[in-house]
Amino acid sequence: MNQKGLLMVISGPSGTGKGTLVKHLLKRNNRIQLSVSATTRNPRPGEVDGVNYFFLKEAEFKEKLAQDEFLEHAEVYGNYYGTPKAFVEDQLNKGQSVLLEIDIVGALQIREKFEEVVFLFVIPPSLKELQRRIKTRGTETQEQMAKRMDSALEEIKELKQYDYVILNDQIHKATRLIESIVEAELASVKRSQSYWLDLFGVGR
Amino acid sequence: MNQKGLLMVISGPSGTGKGTLVKHLLKRNNRIQLSVSATTRNPRPGEVDGVNYFFLKEAEFKEKLAQDEFLEHAEVYGNYYGTPKAFVEDQLNKGQSVLLEIDIVGALQIREKFEEVVFLFVIPPSLKELQRRIKTRGTETQEQMAKRMDSALEEIKELKQYDYVILNDQIHKATRLIESIVEAELASVKRSQSYWLDLFGVGR
Repeated sequence: MNQKGLLMVISGPSGTGKGTLVKHLLKRNNRIQLSVSATTRNPRPGEVDGVNYFFLKEAEFKEKLAQDEFLEHAEVYGNYYGTPKAFVEDQLNKGQSVLLEIDIVGALQIREKFEEVVFLFVIPPSLKELQRRIKTRGTETQEQMAKRMDSALEEIKELKQYDYVILNDQIHKATRLIESIVEAELASVKRSQSYWLDLFGVGR
Repeated sequence: MNQKGLLMVISGPSGTGKGTLVKHLLKRNNRIQLSVSATTRNPRPGEVDGVNYFFLKEAEFKEKLAQDEFLEHAEVYGNYYGTPKAFVEDQLNKGQSVLLEIDIVGALQIREKFEEVVFLFVIPPSLKELQRRIKTRGTETQEQMAKRMDSALEEIKELKQYDYVILNDQIHKATRLIESIVEAELASVKRSQSYWLDLFGVGR
């Protein structure tokens, strides 16, 4: 069955271990890969074009933007960032599932353009654990930590807009849950029915 | 997280190996169990009340039916069969997932009463393999086999009404897919959001 891959967005407040989880998942599963973003910022030492980012001049970025070539985009401190549609669609057509690590604002932009996207929200096991993880960063003042905690809780409210909650308590369990979601979604009737009805010649 | 189990209906044409798949799944996974049906037919030697079936007198069955105590029911050759609501709900509340092996007619009755049910449709890997499996039963005439084939294809059309397609090519893969679906569904935002929002005290 030569099925398209799954496009997934993964978000979650800082302090949930989302970055480590994504790294672990990509290492373990070669059917899932991270999307490569385009950016107008300068490459940092060691960054490779087409691997870490697609590095674009501002004029190029804006032209692509005008031609609706990004799934989502944002401007941060005067630099543009965007998810190139063509790259994502190529991978999906090859049967690769693609993960985008973006925030809720970008995520909602994508949902508008790409109905079939699956939204994952990474969550810490408890309020206490979230506090502990924010504290152990250790480089911030009391006030900064309180602010970070507030903004994490604000983000958690948004989980209502997502499809799945990934409890990141044990990294192996969380990784396995994401793999299960990919497997389940690809077997969903909405994604696979035309394939099956054709295979058995019973029409749509 | 003391979460309710998942209620699943599993259907599929004969010749898909559905029965063997269900047995394998139940053996491997003690968080999933088969529902016990009620029936008015007489127990066969070795059948145990409350294990194989709940054996009821016809008057008892009809009284329960009048009180809406079945999730679905059917009459087959003068005997009644039904899925007792109370049994299923007890198990779900204990966190056990419950599997009902019923046909599309019963399945649709359940969907009306129990929105959160998940529908699984078991499918053979190909038309050819379906033919082969129907043939190897070996006890039927050409005509009977053709009829069985037609009715299998009619059933496959109904997969549009289900949620997931379970390709039963390799039993281990099919079993694992059902387990993945249970895991994914239990992590879905629609089933778990109130738990998480409460846990982090961010209201609903």
